[in-house]
Amino acid sequence: MKKILTFVTLAALAAAAQAQTVTSPDGQVKLDFTLTPSGQPQYEMSYKGKEVIKPSRLGFELMKGKALKDGFKVSGIDTLTFDETWTPVWGEENAIRNHYKEMRVNLEQPETGRKMSIAFRLFNDGMGFRYEFPMQKKLAHFTISDELTEFAVPGNPTAYWIPGDWDTQEYDYTKSRLSEIPSLMDEAYTHHNKWQSFAGPRTIQTALQLKSDDGLYVNLHEAALINYPCMHLDLVGDTAFVLKANLAADPAGMKANMQAPCTTPWRTVIVSDDARDILASRITYNLNDPCKIEDTSWIKPCKYVGVWWEMITGKSKWSYTNDLPDTHIDKVDWTKVKPHGRHGATTANTKRYIDFAAEHGFDAVLVEGWNIGWEDWSNRFKDEVFDFVTPYPDFDLPYLRDYAKSKGVKLIMHHETSSSVRNYERRLDQAYQFMKDNGYDAVKSGYVGNIIPRGNNHFSQWLVNHYQYCVEKAADYKIMVNAHEAVRPTGIARTWPNLIANESARGTEYQAFGGSKPSHCTILPFTRQIGGPMDYTPGIFENDVEKINPKKKSWVNSTIPQQLSLYLTMYSPLQMAADFPEHYAKYMDAFQFIKDVAVDWDKSWYLEAEPMEYVTVARKAKGEDRWFVGSTNGYDPRTSEVKLSFLPKGKYKATIYRDGENAHYKTNPHDYVIETRTVTPSTKLKIKTAAGGGYAISIVPIQ
Amino acid sequence: MKKILTFVTLAALAAAAQAQTVTSPDGQVKLDFTLTPSGQPQYEMSYKGKEVIKPSRLGFELMKGKALKDGFKVSGIDTLTFDETWTPVWGEENAIRNHYKEMRVNLEQPETGRKMSIAFRLFNDGMGFRYEFPMQKKLAHFTISDELTEFAVPGNPTAYWIPGDWDTQEYDYTKSRLSEIPSLMDEAYTHHNKWQSFAGPRTIQTALQLKSDDGLYVNLHEAALINYPCMHLDLVGDTAFVLKANLAADPAGMKANMQAPCTTPWRTVIVSDDARDILASRITYNLNDPCKIEDTSWIKPCKYVGVWWEMITGKSKWSYTNDLPDTHIDKVDWTKVKPHGRHGATTANTKRYIDFAAEHGFDAVLVEGWNIGWEDWSNRFKDEVFDFVTPYPDFDLPYLRDYAKSKGVKLIMHHETSSSVRNYERRLDQAYQFMKDNGYDAVKSGYVGNIIPRGNNHFSQWLVNHYQYCVEKAADYKIMVNAHEAVRPTGIARTWPNLIANESARGTEYQAFGGSKPSHCTILPFTRQIGGPMDYTPGIFENDVEKINPKKKSWVNSTIPQQLSLYLTMYSPLQMAADFPEHYAKYMDAFQFIKDVAVDWDKSWYLEAEPMEYVTVARKAKGEDRWFVGSTNGYDPRTSEVKLSFLPKGKYKATIYRDGENAHYKTNPHDYVIETRTVTPSTKLKIKTAAGGGYAISIVPIQ
Repeated sequence: MKKILTFVTLAALAAAAQAQTVTSPDGQVKLDFTLTPSGQPQYEMSYKGKEVIKPSRLGFELMKGKALKDGFKVSGIDTLTFDETWTPVWGEENAIRNHYKEMRVNLEQPETGRKMSIAFRLFNDGMGFRYEFPMQKKLAHFTISDELTEFAVPGNPTAYWIPGDWDTQEYDYTKSRLSEIPSLMDEAYTHHNKWQSFAGPRTIQTALQLKSDDGLYVNLHEAALINYPCMHLDLVGDTAFVLKANLAADPAGMKANMQAPCTTPWRTVIVSDDARDILASRITYNLNDPCKIEDTSWIKPCKYVGVWWEMITGKSKWSYTNDLPDTHIDKVDWTKVKPHGRHGATTANTKRYIDFAAEHGFDAVLVEGWNIGWEDWSNRFKDEVFDFVTPYPDFDLPYLRDYAKSKGVKLIMHHETSSSVRNYERRLDQAYQFMKDNGYDAVKSGYVGNIIPRGNNHFSQWLVNHYQYCVEKAADYKIMVNAHEAVRPTGIARTWPNLIANESARGTEYQAFGGSKPSHCTILPFTRQIGGPMDYTPGIFENDVEKINPKKKSWVNSTIPQQLSLYLTMYSPLQMAADFPEHYAKYMDAFQFIKDVAVDWDKSWYLEAEPMEYVTVARKAKGEDRWFVGSTNGYDPRTSEVKLSFLPKGKYKATIYRDGENAHYKTNPHDYVIETRTVTPSTKLKIKTAAGGGYAISIVPIQ
Repeated sequence: MKKILTFVTLAALAAAAQAQTVTSPDGQVKLDFTLTPSGQPQYEMSYKGKEVIKPSRLGFELMKGKALKDGFKVSGIDTLTFDETWTPVWGEENAIRNHYKEMRVNLEQPETGRKMSIAFRLFNDGMGFRYEFPMQKKLAHFTISDELTEFAVPGNPTAYWIPGDWDTQEYDYTKSRLSEIPSLMDEAYTHHNKWQSFAGPRTIQTALQLKSDDGLYVNLHEAALINYPCMHLDLVGDTAFVLKANLAADPAGMKANMQAPCTTPWRTVIVSDDARDILASRITYNLNDPCKIEDTSWIKPCKYVGVWWEMITGKSKWSYTNDLPDTHIDKVDWTKVKPHGRHGATTANTKRYIDFAAEHGFDAVLVEGWNIGWEDWSNRFKDEVFDFVTPYPDFDLPYLRDYAKSKGVKLIMHHETSSSVRNYERRLDQAYQFMKDNGYDAVKSGYVGNIIPRGNNHFSQWLVNHYQYCVEKAADYKIMVNAHEAVRPTGIARTWPNLIANESARGTEYQAFGGSKPSHCTILPFTRQIGGPMDYTPGIFENDVEKINPKKKSWVNSTIPQQLSLYLTMYSPLQMAADFPEHYAKYMDAFQFIKDVAVDWDKSWYLEAEPMEYVTVARKAKGEDRWFVGSTNGYDPRTSEVKLSFLPKGKYKATIYRDGENAHYKTNPHDYVIETRTVTPSTKLKIKTAAGGGYAISIVPIQ
């Protein structure tokens, strides 16, 4: 599609307080900007005439000098219409339209002589705005102590939320009215991991999904979080509600150190009266810069298995020995310590996974626990935890490297940093070079535990900068990154598509840590996934963790068809089949779907969606005439009704993997049915899904 | 000299509370260890029967779990006699004897099952002790929240002190009774630099020099500060005085994160009834590990000039342009900005210094401000300040590199980090490689401004670790380091002799910032210099800074002979002639001494010393039959009387550079006399030194 640009600049306005308006290209989203009588910037937003955001204030408190919140006048307005279609390296579709009208309000604060602009971009499915600071003498370097951005929300909508936490997003979601958040916070902020840090009794995280009583779905998040702290939202008010930005602080109480010219991330409001539009929105990506990697041929979506679930369940261990009360990695003679015998990343075990991957067509094998240092790696404020280049003596890396290559399988590197980011940065070049020298193209990095430098949190500007540094340096080495426990994504993968996935939410591992809500994966697409793909690691077929590890009582709250559906509904270009080969062997018919399903797409159709209840999506495999449908259901059993009108004219064979009559995530997760039928574009399917259930369909043309 | 080792291990002692005693090899220093009734470790120390340290407690508070302060029992005592003579790579002598008796008290805390040892090393001139933690299950990783080490001082001695500050040591010294410190603190803690941070009304820094009423000189400091916070001292008590360790904290309030096996730095007490012994003591070096650099042939003492004093005085600038309100170093087109015309590090100016160095026999030229980023470099919490590899357009590095080489002169690199240590570490390999590629063998690094990561201080464990990281990485590249604004040295140059100097005190620059006390360099040898050489940058011949820069009223509080004396009394293997070539041109007769003086020594003799009053030292040039004497005087004019008995039998020509009759640091600093006379080992010299004056002598044999 052709790019259409229109620039209009208005001179300083006669009546600064007069509302300036911009609409979406289709006119349905409307944004009004005004200055309050005290000269504070303010905006409001509507969709199809309905109020989405009530008048809400904008601005900043600074560590030094007059705040950037009032005393402003409008010095000019720039408007622009933009329309392009860009090609993502990987994604839910092979072309993304980026179509918006922009209004940039240029402000001056006469008392200080400072300039600040606020740019609003109006899309048909919502809007984004950010603050921009041109280069100027009166505002060169400054420190933000508080961002005052508000989202004043009409009524008392339903919110799907997790507690504000400066270190983790690994929570189950709570559905409640906004008004109920304070009273439910204690219950929501249960103990999840050892490095959680409570942000406050009225603080929640983004992406935040809201649903109003008049049927509007509103999603608040941010885009392009680069060198700025992560934004949470504070609930202000007890009857009328304002969600106010709350930025992660550093130990000195500073939030963002800024240097003009610069911008904040975009604050995004996605809106529709149809929940499916929220999932189909590409606002977050569109607000990021175009791809900065010239040659992207080395970035490849990937389906993988790995030595991982066995450590999560406690069947085996990351560590090698119990001999050492603690480990100085440079001082241990690993050939002399006694192995405890439960090390997971052994040569033999890895070989078994390589064989399994080769046999079933998986691209890669992840191996965690391959490198020295796991004896005392977590939450000890230990600086030099890992060196990222030295295997345990029972992991024969050169052999496995060559063996995997001979089998056409890639090995995925694992870099657990233990949140000792200085240690990681000091060793990063060497670690990445080691990967390249040994044929690794992708790394799963981890940030478990409290951050070192001590006193910092996972979501502060310091760490946001670090994660980005790793992604950009990895790009130099042509390495794909799948960062776990890092800040949640904000569409940066458009610019750096080697950021192939993140964790940044409660992943499958929690099914072994007590279990997640059966509805969990019906809300993640509305929240965590708004910013980019999640390495959710689905595909668990054995629900009873106790069978694996008698010491661990935990249940995977999902039917097998729901597990299959996640390969569609939890979009990611990196998909794991997380369970053990021996468990798949018992359900090889269901496993066939995981073998078949694609990981990259030409097009996607959200067919059904309701937050925390169900998501159904159809996708066409990239460059192939194969279609897949996935439907993930929440707690209440229901019947999914979908038309296959997304199919081109013709006849197709559909293989349906669905819950059986008595299926239930807890009592009967293995009651599943696999059936095939002939379908056409006019076929309407009615498929029952169980509590914690779902279905998956693969569709191929009948020749 | 042969190494003599004696090991003795005593079994668990019958009476744990019974004092355990160890003495110095000559028996004059005595140390008693006991446990208090509550099981807290305690020591006391005497010298020639006089009390040096009264019973003083030892131990730690921890962030978690029971403190390591009481409930201990003695599980064993190890003793050892050690005697070796080692050869420093550079220094005040070519051989250093390391002779001590050690007593290691092994403690157990039965309630917790933890073990801790305290090792005391008794030398003839004092002692050092440290805490040692063997590898053990019950104490693997732990965080020290407070070190309880005490130095209980008899009486109310005179102290020569600077205020406790977690970011800087750049203070003038105050001489007072310990009891007077609190009331004098306000005056002592005057505004010095923009990143100072007050440690408390009763906190002072080490090395701390004390003098008791019964004539004992006692010096408290630390040795081998590695991966541990810097220790200050808190004055406890108003009539009886205890100096208690106070460690630099990180933003989370943690002081030291420890991982067994590990040790703390040594806490040192140097003692004598003769002040000269304090200066001659090598306890600090001896308590550090032997050299870890195998090939030290590339480490070379150096006399240098440089483009530096002109920026300090404001004659020229580090920066290049005034065009930019702020600088994103990667985005500026330096060929397009307008130079402000006062840039110091130009090709022409550097060439002038290279010529001057070559003409007068200096080894090297330091150039500051050669690299982009000085437009907004300091105290702005700016992350990416410098890249350390890109010269300003008017600094033709390849040309100057080749020109300097053709003249037999080295260029000294300058890395100002602006205390953005993450930026520096990220770029360190590239920066060091750039140096090697361009023939630089030494770097002056700087840590001006508030530390980034924000909330950290210059002296915390995080930063101590960083400085050490740079020194060790520099050794990999065969680079010598002269770190300014880093933590003060603690003898680490024994282990890493490429740490060729530090600043870490109020240097000559303050003579252009209002002036230092005329007695300043008579106390620094007793304090700052105890841990290692200082890059004091002496040799200023033009006292009136206003003549250089009419906007800057400052006076260099020193006579010219005092400036010359500093090349002896302020020992360093790195000595600058800091003034301008044009100033030296006016006093070429005095300048001759700076040209002549050696920078490395076979032997040194401290002839006279009294803290904050005078220091006189004679030294023999390494491998040469040349001797030099320097005497630095404080405020009160005096007559120095020295015997030249350090000379071998023979006749010598002595050239004496001394204050004239009317010399005075303020009113008549240029009244100096140069005279030659014949001397022998039996010559006694009586030389008058003015207020802020001194003298320097060079001695050569008469053939």
